[in-house]
Amino acid sequence: MNEWYMQEGPESDVVMSTRVRIARNFNGIPFPSKMKKEDGQLIIKRVKEAVFGRSSAIGENFKFINIQELSPIKRQVLVEKHLISPNLAESRIESGAIISGEENISIMINEEDHLRIQCLSAGLQLNDTWNLCNKIDNLLEESIDYAFDEKFGYLTCCPTNLGTGIRTSVMLHLPALTMTGYIKGILEICSKLGIAVRGLYGENSEAAGNMYQVSNQVTLGLTEEEIISNINNIAKQIIDQERTIRKQLYTQNSFRFEDRIFRSLGLLSNARIITSEEGLKLLSDVRLGVDMGIITDIDIKKLNEILLLVQPASLQESVGGPLNPEERDIKRAETIRSKLK
Amino acid sequence: MNEWYMQEGPESDVVMSTRVRIARNFNGIPFPSKMKKEDGQLIIKRVKEAVFGRSSAIGENFKFINIQELSPIKRQVLVEKHLISPNLAESRIESGAIISGEENISIMINEEDHLRIQCLSAGLQLNDTWNLCNKIDNLLEESIDYAFDEKFGYLTCCPTNLGTGIRTSVMLHLPALTMTGYIKGILEICSKLGIAVRGLYGENSEAAGNMYQVSNQVTLGLTEEEIISNINNIAKQIIDQERTIRKQLYTQNSFRFEDRIFRSLGLLSNARIITSEEGLKLLSDVRLGVDMGIITDIDIKKLNEILLLVQPASLQESVGGPLNPEERDIKRAETIRSKLK
Repeated sequence: MNEWYMQEGPESDVVMSTRVRIARNFNGIPFPSKMKKEDGQLIIKRVKEAVFGRSSAIGENFKFINIQELSPIKRQVLVEKHLISPNLAESRIESGAIISGEENISIMINEEDHLRIQCLSAGLQLNDTWNLCNKIDNLLEESIDYAFDEKFGYLTCCPTNLGTGIRTSVMLHLPALTMTGYIKGILEICSKLGIAVRGLYGENSEAAGNMYQVSNQVTLGLTEEEIISNINNIAKQIIDQERTIRKQLYTQNSFRFEDRIFRSLGLLSNARIITSEEGLKLLSDVRLGVDMGIITDIDIKKLNEILLLVQPASLQESVGGPLNPEERDIKRAETIRSKLK
Repeated sequence: MNEWYMQEGPESDVVMSTRVRIARNFNGIPFPSKMKKEDGQLIIKRVKEAVFGRSSAIGENFKFINIQELSPIKRQVLVEKHLISPNLAESRIESGAIISGEENISIMINEEDHLRIQCLSAGLQLNDTWNLCNKIDNLLEESIDYAFDEKFGYLTCCPTNLGTGIRTSVMLHLPALTMTGYIKGILEICSKLGIAVRGLYGENSEAAGNMYQVSNQVTLGLTEEEIISNINNIAKQIIDQERTIRKQLYTQNSFRFEDRIFRSLGLLSNARIITSEEGLKLLSDVRLGVDMGIITDIDIKKLNEILLLVQPASLQESVGGPLNPEERDIKRAETIRSKLK
């Protein structure tokens, strides 16, 4: 297991992951929503050549996935791993993804834009993740002519991506700020600063498991480095606040705090039926316990792995076939139990 | 640990314990509520002589406890072990108890009656327990002149004990009948048959932990053997019904059944704060799991021991001093955790 999420990154007591993605389009070809089938095929061919071609510096560790050839479950597994977007999973046009062995790099082809280059890292690693993304972008640009405008920058299908085309986000685990309700004030401040805060699975989702994705909304008028730096600063402030409140809660009533954490661990290690919602809630408590040194025989990597494995499609993939919701809840409990043993 | 509750008796999947007690009074001395201090002292002296005297066949394994000399916590520990009654624990007159090493025999002196001879056994052992009680009674009668009337039998302070003076009871664990509500019908039938059903701690208590004490109400007009036989028959019918419903519930949805049991085990093994009420509820689930072979690495004796240890006075005795309710809940959780490890 050398996947990125099986590593422990900086500030991993609060920051689960860092993600940077950039949107790029081919010059002279309509955006995916308007293009012909042959355009789609041509783009896939050209991107594959750029990555796997004889002169490419990046191809060795990558594999191409044809989205149309995947079963619905396998598509959804990629969504659950944040390797492709829900949009791409539902795509009915020629589309694909080129994914690295460590699953830290994913190049989505013919999503909303022709290209979405995405890099993921454990913990808070905005600069490194951006640098990796930038490197992939430069390598592709050696053989691909991007749609670029001197005034607007990179042209994208949706105007909210115009300019740098960059979306950078950090996934934060904020149980203490959520428990105390202080998260509301933070959400308000972020909104005023043009920073979006969303739940685990992107837009339109609640903060299941106390996990919040903090990302930039503005892509135009700032350099990539300025955008990265803004998110970094905001993230560091939220991290500090979360840590302060965690300590306060623990100091106020350590028995009650530990009771909550160990009860959740006890349920996760013993229950025979666990819904997705309950699983996220209990895993959040256990993660908090690990982060604070209250639970010492489980590490964050194990919890990251469990978080991925207990999602609906991943559970179904593990048994090699469809499971109804009840069967998933049983398989989820079984998976968590065996991983925590 | 050779205490009676550390042994496993017959039908122990449903029957926790069997108790037989008989009420006896000295001829020619007023009942304890009316007697003078010297009468009380005399009775204690005479009972001690009967038990510990040179010619006694029973004294070796027994010890005398002077209730007045005990701290409130130590008195309450004896109540929690069912070795003395709450009445005797609160006694302000000369009173005592003579208790066997296995804690299966207790002779209370100057409770409501001059003598209450009580025998306890694990599981369903009505005949053996009665025989033991009868044997102690006969040995005492060798040197004590009991108040006895040819028409009414043994005379007792309260007319409900008149005649045989016997109260025989079995403590049943009835989680399945309780869960399904069928227990109500059983309570009604018992009431019509002159059988009392009470919660864990005797009269005026709810059935905490799904434990019900089934005992005879009539002491007059039947022989001891008839009374014993009645309770035995009723108990066996309730045991059969409880077992049937347990199997039905398990067959209907084994995952949900096991989920409940293992969640309770998970909480008991991990929580840092457990109230008395929650502890009894969770222990009831775990006992059910052990009884049905779902939990295999814990035995009933361990659960019996925990049930005794987590009571308020026993917890306080274990730390050697008073604990407020919050401290007790913490100590209770700690005790359960260490015993289940």
